[in-house]
Amino acid sequence: MSKPYVVGIDIGGTNTVFGIVDARGSILATGSIKTQKYTEITDYVNALHEELSRLLAQENVTDQIAGIGIGAPNGNYFNGTIEFAPNLPWKGVIPLAQMVREKFNIPVTITNDANAAAIGEMTYGAARGVKDFIMITLGTGVGSGIVINGQMVYGHDGFAGELGHVIVRRGNGRLCGCGRTGCLEAYTSATGVARTAREFLELRNDESTLRQLPIQEITSKDVYDAAVSGDKLSQEIFEYTGTILGEAFADFIAFSSPKMIVLFGGLAKSGELIMRPIREAMEKNLLAIYKGKVKLVLSELKESDAAVLGASALGWEAS
Amino acid sequence: MSKPYVVGIDIGGTNTVFGIVDARGSILATGSIKTQKYTEITDYVNALHEELSRLLAQENVTDQIAGIGIGAPNGNYFNGTIEFAPNLPWKGVIPLAQMVREKFNIPVTITNDANAAAIGEMTYGAARGVKDFIMITLGTGVGSGIVINGQMVYGHDGFAGELGHVIVRRGNGRLCGCGRTGCLEAYTSATGVARTAREFLELRNDESTLRQLPIQEITSKDVYDAAVSGDKLSQEIFEYTGTILGEAFADFIAFSSPKMIVLFGGLAKSGELIMRPIREAMEKNLLAIYKGKVKLVLSELKESDAAVLGASALGWEAS
Repeated sequence: MSKPYVVGIDIGGTNTVFGIVDARGSILATGSIKTQKYTEITDYVNALHEELSRLLAQENVTDQIAGIGIGAPNGNYFNGTIEFAPNLPWKGVIPLAQMVREKFNIPVTITNDANAAAIGEMTYGAARGVKDFIMITLGTGVGSGIVINGQMVYGHDGFAGELGHVIVRRGNGRLCGCGRTGCLEAYTSATGVARTAREFLELRNDESTLRQLPIQEITSKDVYDAAVSGDKLSQEIFEYTGTILGEAFADFIAFSSPKMIVLFGGLAKSGELIMRPIREAMEKNLLAIYKGKVKLVLSELKESDAAVLGASALGWEAS
Repeated sequence: MSKPYVVGIDIGGTNTVFGIVDARGSILATGSIKTQKYTEITDYVNALHEELSRLLAQENVTDQIAGIGIGAPNGNYFNGTIEFAPNLPWKGVIPLAQMVREKFNIPVTITNDANAAAIGEMTYGAARGVKDFIMITLGTGVGSGIVINGQMVYGHDGFAGELGHVIVRRGNGRLCGCGRTGCLEAYTSATGVARTAREFLELRNDESTLRQLPIQEITSKDVYDAAVSGDKLSQEIFEYTGTILGEAFADFIAFSSPKMIVLFGGLAKSGELIMRPIREAMEKNLLAIYKGKVKLVLSELKESDAAVLGASALGWEAS
């Protein structure tokens, strides 16, 4: 076999993006289909097969694919399934790994999107050579992928690593999308930051450029822009969000004592605005034996490539 | 070599207990020395060598020892050291594994006492054949040993698994022995239960047989005895303690999705009095995907034997 490649497939609620990747993490070519267009999973797999086959033929690497890795919401590594994913068109348990394997006759591995991001970071990014780290994805939700002793943590059922749903405010916490209250995600996702903005604006009287916007439409991006422009209230929102994250990280560290925590996703791009309060709250709240030991870093993968790279890294594992 | 044995050494603040154990977890013989008697570590190791050698000769198994496992407060698996253990006579970093290895010329492995308990449970106890579980030790403090995919979790520095020091009450939590506030240990250790009793008695006016005791001298054992005799306030203390544990366990499960949580130590012996509120709070607080999946069980090791058995199990690993 000539130079081997893997395929990474990132399934999102809107789009499915796939790419052909070499062993060094260079993307040879990418393509995509609309996830929402296919209400039947068989139609979806057929469309994926058609488009991906065309891309492989076009790049002349059809016979050089060692494995296919798939990152998907609620993807289960052990079962090769997507299970009860609220934002995908297919309900119940979908045996996707098997369906894709039968089409391509290539090994296929699946996991959830945050785990795929962690594997990508370990294979090509900031966590190369790091055996113990935690990946935190700060997007619409808060996800996590945990690596211990060089291995992805899947847990007994493949569903480990839901750190967006540890409870950071007991008793009177915010309602979370999962139906419980006080989850980390309810405070530190992009949506959480927007909620904090609305709370601050309603409960306080100090000036803020955010008051020029319709309150229900404020996004985390608006808060970021205002904070960068010097808006004090917006800066406090980042302080508040980062503090909650840093406190939670101190607890995560007491669990697995990682060498590194890697942040990824929209909010992480706010740079020091969010990193400083996280770092300060984390260090302040750490048990003495962990202080000063844990690196807090930003993902080194480009956000547009990261999902496909992460999934592709899983493809090497499948092969 | 004839039938192989291992030696397990459990180093406590008061006593050091050692035992000769076979592959099925049967203890052939045990001995002990006073830990506190030896302020110099070399004197301690000499005394340990002398007593243990005598026991091995007496049992006629001197040449049949495959390895020595040591469980000790602040024992570090990677470094083979005891590091800054507050309750032991030797300060700083003690290279104990090396010192014992040089005396006996047998492989020696060391870890902290809660990890040793987890390894014991996995080798001889309730967690046999279970690849993903968390051991929680409820004693004077609250310790933990985490097993993921059949492997002990040590973290990048050997100090993973300090779940007694995750924060369960933010902001105005109780002062913990670690110097921070709101730790799980400050509420659910034996000392924590006694503190709860004093708080309840001081803040409330309802009757309790506990009021017959000098308030500063109430122990968790007193609370247990009163609860079993039908004392409502004491039963509420168990309810309160178990609820805090169950809430914390729900967060631990979101981390590693274990198949089982094993409870060990004095408080765990309270049986259903503590197990029922833990189970209820845990299930109530679990993210939907984990509900009904995690077994909550009591250790199957006799408390008098468990520490030595746990340490001895590590001896097989050393061999």
